[in-house]
Amino acid sequence: MSENNMKTVILIGARGKMGQAALTGLGKHKVITAGLSGDVDHIVDITDEQSIEALYQKVGHFDAVVNTVGVCEYAPFTEMSESQWMTTVMSKMMGQINLVRIGQKYIADGGSFTLISGILNVKPIPLAIADATTSGAIDTFAKCVAHEMPRGIRINVINPTVLKEAWDVYGEMMPGFEPVPSTLVGKAFERSVDGFISGQVLYVDA
Amino acid sequence: MSENNMKTVILIGARGKMGQAALTGLGKHKVITAGLSGDVDHIVDITDEQSIEALYQKVGHFDAVVNTVGVCEYAPFTEMSESQWMTTVMSKMMGQINLVRIGQKYIADGGSFTLISGILNVKPIPLAIADATTSGAIDTFAKCVAHEMPRGIRINVINPTVLKEAWDVYGEMMPGFEPVPSTLVGKAFERSVDGFISGQVLYVDA
Repeated sequence: MSENNMKTVILIGARGKMGQAALTGLGKHKVITAGLSGDVDHIVDITDEQSIEALYQKVGHFDAVVNTVGVCEYAPFTEMSESQWMTTVMSKMMGQINLVRIGQKYIADGGSFTLISGILNVKPIPLAIADATTSGAIDTFAKCVAHEMPRGIRINVINPTVLKEAWDVYGEMMPGFEPVPSTLVGKAFERSVDGFISGQVLYVDA
Repeated sequence: MSENNMKTVILIGARGKMGQAALTGLGKHKVITAGLSGDVDHIVDITDEQSIEALYQKVGHFDAVVNTVGVCEYAPFTEMSESQWMTTVMSKMMGQINLVRIGQKYIADGGSFTLISGILNVKPIPLAIADATTSGAIDTFAKCVAHEMPRGIRINVINPTVLKEAWDVYGEMMPGFEPVPSTLVGKAFERSVDGFISGQVLYVDA
């Protein structure tokens, strides 16, 4: 690896399990960590446009944005409230769209955005309709918006199944799913950040 | 046709071009028309939960809801504002989800919902990123939520290309697209309302 391949990558949600998975694929880069709280370089709330704009302005030069967060509410469809829907829409969907909408003004030429969706839009399960619907929106968004990104900027989405490292939390609601190791999901992030692909949904499923 | 097959269908957006297309497939049913304004049986604004609830309460018994409306804003992605995004999200996406969320409490056993998306999530064009993204969300929503609809209620989405009857308005922004006749789109609505399918995206494309 030459130093010329080293990029400055903003990793949002760095302390979460998906953030840690992404990190395993970003070893050759300068990673700037961001998140809602905790031991990160910058605090950011992706549901707040001003917070997103402030993050980009504070970082200055960067080549890639990797987002691993998006709050989802879980409930049976017949019981899910408008407020639960909107929490999910404003975070997992509009939060990520705003990361790209605002970030395209600041990111370096030829930079990349890597967003996160999740396998439940392809393999639906009870309680997850808002998660699935917003994942479908984000997969579609990346596939379509790639055609109009300026200055050679790329965009992809990682659509993983559940992580082995999160199986103790999610396993019970996902019978018959096979978890994948974080390092395999990390490879998908690496392929998005270090490759030349754009407008793709990178499924990581078993 | 026996009278037993006659259903009471609420058609939202009845006076629009897509509503008129749907109407060509609903000839055997009792159609109750609804829309934002004009010569309809009931006024309804799908972005307003109270308005949706009032519509269902006023109609009383109904077997099917056919929605043909959803406001979309069109702009290049780099110029589209948060407000333009939210107009589209709250109408085409959340408006339709709320039609189902609220309507599932009122619709007859074995009833059906038929929503509208549009081919631009599959065939992207400039200016249409919000339309495409919310169409992707609605297609995903219908495919996933079908599994948890109560009381034998079905749900499908019609995903049409541009209508021949609307080509004078949209043709210029859709080079290389082949419009389809309204009557062909009407057949897709008929297949959703009169069939037994659920969780399907019915593409009508040429």
